[in-house]
Amino acid sequence: MASTTGQVIKCKAAVAWEAGKPLVIEEVEVAPPQDMEVRIKILFTSLCHTDVYFWEAKGQTPVFPRIFGVTDMQPGDQVLPVFTGECKECRHCKSEESNMCDLLRINTDRGVMLNDGKSRFSINGKPIYNFVGCSTFSEYTVCHVGCVAKINPEAPLDKVCILSCGVSTGLGAALNVAKPKKGSTVAVFGLGAVGLGACEGARISGASRIIGVDLNASRFNEAKKFGCTEFVNPKDHSKPVQEVIAEMTDGGVDRSIECTGSIQAMISAFECVHDGWGVAVLVGVPNKDDAFKTHPMKLLNERTLKGTFFGNYKPRSDLPSVVEMYMNKELELEKFITHEVPFADINKAFDLMLKGEGLRCIIRM
Amino acid sequence: MASTTGQVIKCKAAVAWEAGKPLVIEEVEVAPPQDMEVRIKILFTSLCHTDVYFWEAKGQTPVFPRIFGVTDMQPGDQVLPVFTGECKECRHCKSEESNMCDLLRINTDRGVMLNDGKSRFSINGKPIYNFVGCSTFSEYTVCHVGCVAKINPEAPLDKVCILSCGVSTGLGAALNVAKPKKGSTVAVFGLGAVGLGACEGARISGASRIIGVDLNASRFNEAKKFGCTEFVNPKDHSKPVQEVIAEMTDGGVDRSIECTGSIQAMISAFECVHDGWGVAVLVGVPNKDDAFKTHPMKLLNERTLKGTFFGNYKPRSDLPSVVEMYMNKELELEKFITHEVPFADINKAFDLMLKGEGLRCIIRM
Repeated sequence: MASTTGQVIKCKAAVAWEAGKPLVIEEVEVAPPQDMEVRIKILFTSLCHTDVYFWEAKGQTPVFPRIFGVTDMQPGDQVLPVFTGECKECRHCKSEESNMCDLLRINTDRGVMLNDGKSRFSINGKPIYNFVGCSTFSEYTVCHVGCVAKINPEAPLDKVCILSCGVSTGLGAALNVAKPKKGSTVAVFGLGAVGLGACEGARISGASRIIGVDLNASRFNEAKKFGCTEFVNPKDHSKPVQEVIAEMTDGGVDRSIECTGSIQAMISAFECVHDGWGVAVLVGVPNKDDAFKTHPMKLLNERTLKGTFFGNYKPRSDLPSVVEMYMNKELELEKFITHEVPFADINKAFDLMLKGEGLRCIIRM
Repeated sequence: MASTTGQVIKCKAAVAWEAGKPLVIEEVEVAPPQDMEVRIKILFTSLCHTDVYFWEAKGQTPVFPRIFGVTDMQPGDQVLPVFTGECKECRHCKSEESNMCDLLRINTDRGVMLNDGKSRFSINGKPIYNFVGCSTFSEYTVCHVGCVAKINPEAPLDKVCILSCGVSTGLGAALNVAKPKKGSTVAVFGLGAVGLGACEGARISGASRIIGVDLNASRFNEAKKFGCTEFVNPKDHSKPVQEVIAEMTDGGVDRSIECTGSIQAMISAFECVHDGWGVAVLVGVPNKDDAFKTHPMKLLNERTLKGTFFGNYKPRSDLPSVVEMYMNKELELEKFITHEVPFADINKAFDLMLKGEGLRCIIRM
């Protein structure tokens, strides 16, 4: 193959021309990478709810036409592009506690590269915007190097590609933030891929009881594979779900993890943890106008409330070790992958997610 | 001296006959201790705001007549009675994270001993209720052994007696819960004895900036002795104090500690910490109907909100080591003690606290 260094590559990409309209596979031009950028060949990608959310663009300032896609990878130097980055220079990257890089923190409104404020994608010279610096719904994409994690070259790309977004978010919320002790009780609110990632993290931590909470009873059976031992459907109870959980657990769970973004679920997740040592971790993204409201005595009784972003994983420093957890069979990814479609059928992956069918759909480029 | 074992002791105690009325020094009978109880000779005691709060009894179910007093000690086996306890048997005592003992957790409504549901104090056979199992405003008192910490027999009683309540609460909020790193920035809301205890803890931790926040400007000069480097009076600013602090600190402090109990101060204390790593610790006791309210994105941006009770110190296991911190000159207590009165003048100590004059007043029995 002739070198493409410094050349524009023409390839196929799934372009979102308008909010909520099916993606169209188009031939696009992908400009060569600039300083601190890499051009990546995408082999597998997947869909996260974030893609759907910004594609629907309800109540947002739309940035179209745009190439979506958060999750992907590449052989050679096998990499995972991530929707947020790690410059390794800023206060956040230098802090052991934060992964909210000042330079490369997720920006869903930008749509262009940092270097020159332009997108690397175009059709007949007309710019097509990128999405969170990733745009993996394209055979080739260009990312800032700070958003690309180099991983084990032996890792199977059609599995570990799902680690670039929601699954790691849930997993890290459990392993890095909630940190349940062996034998402890954990409640997980929301049993989508993020919540099941949190269940998987709780299972790996050795939690003895993992209580799944979801309004959709059909999720319960699937969740058992991820370590869920009990289920609560708030619809089945007249009293608030936090009271139901407190009764099940002699005063409350040791840890709770909220993965829905519903403000009521956030409040329940906080109020269902035990006093003295309970820790509630918020993961789901709320609506703009939501207010978190609780009685401060619940805090003073030695409960902890904290939030996390991407499971507190630093993309470049930490994701390679999550891939290793999979390689060592400590972490199971197969059970998250319920569908696979060829790139031409990418709109089917959107349909599946809109209908809430399955967990992750792999898109084979 | 003849043994008093098993005998009723007659001694002086300051009795609160009615809410808000001056205490009266009366001769009381102190019954002998029952199973798991100890009778203690009080040499020094002090006043905490908790005493004033329940003596005023505003909006409370009053428990009178009663002997107040949270803070004290005794020679021989030198001890500090504490307003909350540690049975060493329950889930909380067995947890490394909690000090909220199931058996002996503070109960401000009880007024009697656990063993038989009676007070050990009486006047002419008529019961005088105790206060949080301590009642140190008496020459002799009876406590559950779980509420008594045995301390270094060399410790000067007229100094370390103040460790039984607010000072340890603030100190522990910093050292055990906020845990500021060396060189970090800390905001402390409220510069009374609890808040200055938190400042002292931040100073001992090596914080490089300690920002005191108080509505009373006269507190600022005193606070410098406790490590305060900067002061903010919310009254001096038109914008919310959390925004003032964020501007002073390039995005927020590393840790904040709320020691007022004002709900607005609690919200400000949470919203003034830096994203990525900021931790806000609530100490002050709110009103019954207060609601803590914030936007959940502030949590999702990796802030932590937690509350503490008695600075997370387990009374029996941990207080002796706080006394040692004083003995090693790591912790300074003298600067907290601004007044001293003889027992006969105990009402002067109430007056000083009601007027907000000074910090701690030692009562010499």
